[in-house]
Amino acid sequence: MKTFAWILILTSVALAQTKARDDSKKPLTLASQGSFFVGGESKTIAPAGRGPAAAPGEITINQMYVQYQIPPNGAQHVPVVMVHGCCLSSKTWETTPDGRMGWNEYFVRKDRSVYLADQSSRARSGFDPSTINAVKAGTVPPSQLPNVLAATHQTAWSVFRFGPKFNEPFPDGQFPIEAVEELYKQMIPDLNSTLPNPNPTWKNMAALAVKLNGAVLMGHSESGFFPEQAALIDPSGIKGLISIEMPCPALTDAQIATLAKIPTLIMFGDHLGDVQGGPASWNSSFEGCQKFVQQVKDKGGDAEMMHLPKLGIKGNSHMLMQDRNNLQLADLLLTWIDGHVEAKKKSR
Amino acid sequence: MKTFAWILILTSVALAQTKARDDSKKPLTLASQGSFFVGGESKTIAPAGRGPAAAPGEITINQMYVQYQIPPNGAQHVPVVMVHGCCLSSKTWETTPDGRMGWNEYFVRKDRSVYLADQSSRARSGFDPSTINAVKAGTVPPSQLPNVLAATHQTAWSVFRFGPKFNEPFPDGQFPIEAVEELYKQMIPDLNSTLPNPNPTWKNMAALAVKLNGAVLMGHSESGFFPEQAALIDPSGIKGLISIEMPCPALTDAQIATLAKIPTLIMFGDHLGDVQGGPASWNSSFEGCQKFVQQVKDKGGDAEMMHLPKLGIKGNSHMLMQDRNNLQLADLLLTWIDGHVEAKKKSR
Repeated sequence: MKTFAWILILTSVALAQTKARDDSKKPLTLASQGSFFVGGESKTIAPAGRGPAAAPGEITINQMYVQYQIPPNGAQHVPVVMVHGCCLSSKTWETTPDGRMGWNEYFVRKDRSVYLADQSSRARSGFDPSTINAVKAGTVPPSQLPNVLAATHQTAWSVFRFGPKFNEPFPDGQFPIEAVEELYKQMIPDLNSTLPNPNPTWKNMAALAVKLNGAVLMGHSESGFFPEQAALIDPSGIKGLISIEMPCPALTDAQIATLAKIPTLIMFGDHLGDVQGGPASWNSSFEGCQKFVQQVKDKGGDAEMMHLPKLGIKGNSHMLMQDRNNLQLADLLLTWIDGHVEAKKKSR
Repeated sequence: MKTFAWILILTSVALAQTKARDDSKKPLTLASQGSFFVGGESKTIAPAGRGPAAAPGEITINQMYVQYQIPPNGAQHVPVVMVHGCCLSSKTWETTPDGRMGWNEYFVRKDRSVYLADQSSRARSGFDPSTINAVKAGTVPPSQLPNVLAATHQTAWSVFRFGPKFNEPFPDGQFPIEAVEELYKQMIPDLNSTLPNPNPTWKNMAALAVKLNGAVLMGHSESGFFPEQAALIDPSGIKGLISIEMPCPALTDAQIATLAKIPTLIMFGDHLGDVQGGPASWNSSFEGCQKFVQQVKDKGGDAEMMHLPKLGIKGNSHMLMQDRNNLQLADLLLTWIDGHVEAKKKSR
């Protein structure tokens, strides 16, 4: 889409923003809600724990917990699946650290069925603890312990681009920095290093899209390219790919051709190169994803790089779904889904 | 309450059960929903992980994730806080393994504000991984690794009393045993052994009750006595205690006197002594809790043991909030709250 078209959209989005905030106080009506698991397999483990647990037996691993809400008009739109990033859970998409409405509820209020998935090995999806218990039992050396990634506040500040250095926010930063302690509470140990390859979350996301008879998959950061990875396993249920701020890996021509059949949106925020001592990788991630977008386009695909500063939207952090203008950004995604996924769906 | 009064209630509850199932298909309207954390503190950790994470820094531990839904008439009732048991998450209270409505939504449909808390160190509340990483780094011996409790399917079957032996259900069992694999997916590693003493969840539950200006606290199994433990730390926000199937520890006279000021309900299901090779402890837990109820009564408190078979309700498992008659049991709890907590509130 051309830039002038985006400016028109952004103007109406800005006008709609105040109304959206008022709407957030209105009651919310759901057709239904609930939770379930996708995937999972049995694994036999050695004795561990207390009492009857001290016998060998099976546990279930690699399952993915999914929590959903369906609005009354949900059937008129393609469902949206949201998957969080490193060291986080589905809390990412809920109430923001400063208490505003998250994307999960906002999308439901915009008549979208929303599915929040905790990555396999994280949060309510559980993880495989058998190596930890084997090391404790002395049957496996400590060097084989998983690398449990515990991102510090300092790491979050720099990777999430809250400011040039720790505790010094960007003057134009959109993240609600006064509530950063509440974000730190969302950060939980990341046990993805315990997972087999390929990551079961990819297969589970693809299976979820099939189960839903079609869905837009959205990922962020660590999971930013998971929608594409899911599509490379089974594209049949995937109607759109939304990837937010992540590296885009090199792919084969055949892989690009598969992905080029699905509308793709990539979103990046601001200050990609402005963090001192932080990862230089945001700029290179951005460049890698620009290349990916071009590759998809070259195969005739519908792919778009939405770099927010280029649209005049400044100061967005890596946690842009929690930024002060999060509902404005949500409107950009909804408009993209309407134009690129839903329009396509209706024209079939 | 006398048995004949319960029989009257149970008759009306049974009649209401069919209607309740029909109601579950109706749209659900919420005044609001969201999530937040209670508690949490900073801890400095040694370098771990990749990239900028390889510098020491702070992480947040011991926080408790809370997800809530408030119905339009929620202000007319005391909020209810539900806390799950061992090796489980708040999934416990949601959609049952066979896809029926959980207590979380049912209580909301009955005009109660519901708060689901993931125990500190579990699921979306995260856990403290520093000992695991210290063992991997070689600075701490493997013997100091936490005991990560991974309950097997076999353990679940016996502890949750699904049948006399593994894969042999009780003929009158209320658990939807055809969906037991879905329950196994809910079972996730339990890292409570990493927690300090007293368990931070207790303090967090007490703080949540204060934040809500009064709440009924409900616990189950591992967390069954957490409502009482919370009240022993700070009873000021706690308007009622509901404890489901757990051991009741010995308490001092002063502790009993504190708890005797708060209405208390204890619920136990069926087949307490009928599992071969299972924990003999369900009968002794039941006896210990009967003693606790009597101690509270002796101090002039309002305490009640609701042993379901004694009310003519047979076949309930340990996971009674997921049993086929789960909404019937929910009605018993709602009736108890109305009579013992709300009536008291109104008379003040």
